[in-house]
Amino acid sequence: MSSVAELDLPVVFKYHVIACFTKRPPGHPRGSCMESGAQPLWEHLQKKVEAQRLTDVCVTASGCLSFCRAGPLMVVYPEGVWYHPETVDDIDEIVDRHFGAGEPVERLIIVPKV
Amino acid sequence: MSSVAELDLPVVFKYHVIACFTKRPPGHPRGSCMESGAQPLWEHLQKKVEAQRLTDVCVTASGCLSFCRAGPLMVVYPEGVWYHPETVDDIDEIVDRHFGAGEPVERLIIVPKV
Repeated sequence: MSSVAELDLPVVFKYHVIACFTKRPPGHPRGSCMESGAQPLWEHLQKKVEAQRLTDVCVTASGCLSFCRAGPLMVVYPEGVWYHPETVDDIDEIVDRHFGAGEPVERLIIVPKV
Repeated sequence: MSSVAELDLPVVFKYHVIACFTKRPPGHPRGSCMESGAQPLWEHLQKKVEAQRLTDVCVTASGCLSFCRAGPLMVVYPEGVWYHPETVDDIDEIVDRHFGAGEPVERLIIVPKV
């Protein structure tokens, strides 16, 4: 039997961002990240990562991440940090500090309750 | 400045599966996970995780994971293990061994080239 450490896998991306693009109709009781204003944030994120040629950062659009009331929601792996950004400035800070300097942006981190 | 270790975040899920649901038209030069037969595999995965009440496993549908030729593709975090399953038996093995016993299924792991 092999453990992950024994497999000694190379790291495919330094950071893998999972950003929720779920859209539910206005007034839906669960809400959704798109209804919470996620669209311009994720567009800004994708453009910024591309413009800065951060080839070690992968941004993947996703379906529901389960904690709809906390949206907009994105997760960054391998750390497993869940972010709730609200503005494009928040996105800039995550890109510059977390992806650029390796320092998670504590004020934007949330811990969803399972 | 805070490191992730200093933040001491609780783990939201024990395993977070990102499974690619991208569908491109037949004959598209990039191909896609849906064209590679992913649909019944991910449906089986979702049903099995639900049936076994694995509440510490989150399965998130995603857009393109960048390595379309290697589809069907799913990633499991926090390990960052990339799997290329081809049958529902492969899915059963990942659920039983990786999520159940904590042992990644080495024969189904691939390492995409960036």
